[in-house]
Amino acid sequence: MDKETARVEAFSDGIFGIAMTLLILEFRVPILPHGDPDARRQLIHALLALWPASVAFLLSFGTVLIMWVNHHGLFKHAHKADNRLFFANGLLMLLVTFVPFPTWVLAEYLDHQAANVAATFYCATFVLVSISYNILLWSVVVNRRPGAPGSEMTIARVRRSYRLGFVAYFLAMLVAMFWPYIGVAICFSLWPMWAMLRYYEREMR
Amino acid sequence: MDKETARVEAFSDGIFGIAMTLLILEFRVPILPHGDPDARRQLIHALLALWPASVAFLLSFGTVLIMWVNHHGLFKHAHKADNRLFFANGLLMLLVTFVPFPTWVLAEYLDHQAANVAATFYCATFVLVSISYNILLWSVVVNRRPGAPGSEMTIARVRRSYRLGFVAYFLAMLVAMFWPYIGVAICFSLWPMWAMLRYYEREMR
Amino acid sequence: MDKETARVEAFSDGIFGIAMTLLILEFRVPILPHGDPDARRQLIHALLALWPASVAFLLSFGTVLIMWVNHHGLFKHAHKADNRLFFANGLLMLLVTFVPFPTWVLAEYLDHQAANVAATFYCATFVLVSISYNILLWSVVVNRRPGAPGSEMTIARVRRSYRLGFVAYFLAMLVAMFWPYIGVAICFSLWPMWAMLRYYEREMR
Amino acid sequence: MDKETARVEAFSDGIFGIAMTLLILEFRVPILPHGDPDARRQLIHALLALWPASVAFLLSFGTVLIMWVNHHGLFKHAHKADNRLFFANGLLMLLVTFVPFPTWVLAEYLDHQAANVAATFYCATFVLVSISYNILLWSVVVNRRPGAPGSEMTIARVRRSYRLGFVAYFLAMLVAMFWPYIGVAICFSLWPMWAMLRYYEREMR
Repeated sequence: MDKETARVEAFSDGIFGIAMTLLILEFRVPILPHGDPDARRQLIHALLALWPASVAFLLSFGTVLIMWVNHHGLFKHAHKADNRLFFANGLLMLLVTFVPFPTWVLAEYLDHQAANVAATFYCATFVLVSISYNILLWSVVVNRRPGAPGSEMTIARVRRSYRLGFVAYFLAMLVAMFWPYIGVAICFSLWPMWAMLRYYEREMR
Repeated sequence: MDKETARVEAFSDGIFGIAMTLLILEFRVPILPHGDPDARRQLIHALLALWPASVAFLLSFGTVLIMWVNHHGLFKHAHKADNRLFFANGLLMLLVTFVPFPTWVLAEYLDHQAANVAATFYCATFVLVSISYNILLWSVVVNRRPGAPGSEMTIARVRRSYRLGFVAYFLAMLVAMFWPYIGVAICFSLWPMWAMLRYYEREMR
Repeated sequence: MDKETARVEAFSDGIFGIAMTLLILEFRVPILPHGDPDARRQLIHALLALWPASVAFLLSFGTVLIMWVNHHGLFKHAHKADNRLFFANGLLMLLVTFVPFPTWVLAEYLDHQAANVAATFYCATFVLVSISYNILLWSVVVNRRPGAPGSEMTIARVRRSYRLGFVAYFLAMLVAMFWPYIGVAICFSLWPMWAMLRYYEREMR
Repeated sequence: MDKETARVEAFSDGIFGIAMTLLILEFRVPILPHGDPDARRQLIHALLALWPASVAFLLSFGTVLIMWVNHHGLFKHAHKADNRLFFANGLLMLLVTFVPFPTWVLAEYLDHQAANVAATFYCATFVLVSISYNILLWSVVVNRRPGAPGSEMTIARVRRSYRLGFVAYFLAMLVAMFWPYIGVAICFSLWPMWAMLRYYEREMR
């Protein structure tokens, strides 16, 4: 791998890490009046009421963590840091940076009447993320050298998974319009598929 | 150590560093009306009233700093970046990222009637952290090569300390339900034990 | 490249990355009352009303991303990490760190009566950024060794682009005083020029 | 330099960078009502009223940037990452992470009646920082090998500057109690001294 792609990778690592850490800002400290005799019970309730925030935090953290692994997997195939790769990766970074916002919205509205709007918005963000991964895959493959590690079969397999990911997130988005919890559940259910792609990258070396 | 584990380590370093730096967000600038003749005295009082925030900041910063050292100590034994290691580490990173929230809650409620709820929540987070470290230790040890540096005795010693850590945080959690300050004091008192583990790692090389 | 300049570069990468990620904080979660029968429609409207925030986010993220690439391009020519380079780079980092603030102001006021003030403030920030890049170029070129890669012609070409950038942002600032949208559009229109500079750097190696 | 000290240095770089970038959070977007006929003039006034925030931002950014350079200078002498170095550096990192808070307080109160409280608090933080640098210097020097680069004279010179820094910040703190602007000016006036130390480090190699 050339030095330039290593630099793009290191920079992307930073963005992934900061975006994951900023997710915690969705948890807001409950404010209770001092001197309330019932303060203990109220604080317990306020903490328990953070369950939607916890679900949103867990989902986004796990998903971005797995995206980070796949990013490294994909960059193992990258041999040239041309403008195509650079802008495809830049688009992905833009979306990774954006992820905290739909996560905060989901955290705020998951137990609210407008949960379907929040869940649809959340899934729509990941539709864009999966499109961005497909573009990044294309920009990597286009520069593949003939004798590069990893057979055509392998690339085809990854490409199928990436396309399946797009379809699944699109489906989740549609479902979330009516049944927000099922939409969110679909997002969770994609973890094993993305994690499996990693196994494959390793076997290939 | 192979390149993959180095990458996981660098990524974890970033998460540790950002989580520690975000702790400062618990300090909120006191807002006083302009033109108040008594403003100076009020600002001094407002700054002095931040002592619970300072205790919480110091405790979490110190603990995460020591956790970071132990993380490197543990990764010296890691020879393979398999999915087991990856997800065990991911769980730890999730909890490290979460630490600022219980810290902010502790900062807000340590001088409040609901201090025991806040302190119990804080200690409970570190119960999870210590479970996560035990899982990470297991995922590292499972891949140990026969001739790896560090005797079985050493590993056993670390494992004992990690289990002791779990017990101590669990105890702190129970105690904090009734005596929040003692629960917090137990968390502080664990610093030397975790710091001692570091000495041991170095001696082993 | 000597080890010192590599360190300055790595540090700058971190600042670029964090500044880009902090841009997301301009998106504030809309707060709607629980139990409102019309909550869904209101949340949709609240999300659609974030279009100025999206424009500002996209513009700043893209611009800082391209600035990051140009920063690496420029540092390929840096052979000595003297105080001149150090402070020229420090000034640029100060401005990069500052970028989120005019971006948040633009996000808040782009669909507001005071849009021209916000857009002028935004463009003025990039006038300073472009001055800072010109200073950094000077501080790099002043240390060039005779047989360094890249002809005098190349340096002259970069210098012309940097000066053109200054003129363009200055123009955008003046225009934004009366037509804020055109000022913002000029900022977007500079992307291809900065991206083109990258091509050149690669060809030169 | 051994691998361990390099790791401590990289981690510290991250903390320096994030602390510097978080300074921008002191700039809060002015909120003006939509539809106010006088909105433009008001936004201009609101932006101009940010001058104390700008002074505080500039002062802290510049100071931490110079601290970062001196940190690297100091670590060039570090040959052993023992617990002494580790905790001395941890204390410094704690204080670096804390710097944004007094900066935000200074930004809020510099044009306020309570400016002297804010400025005293700010200077007091840097008294602690300078104590911490003196401790770090000690923990580095204590491990110096006989034939290490840099003469005893050089070390003595740095030590004198570090002690002078402590005295200067202590003086600034006392002065700020009565004349906040002079206290802040003393903090600015220390930049050249810290920057000079860097020159010296380079000459020594």
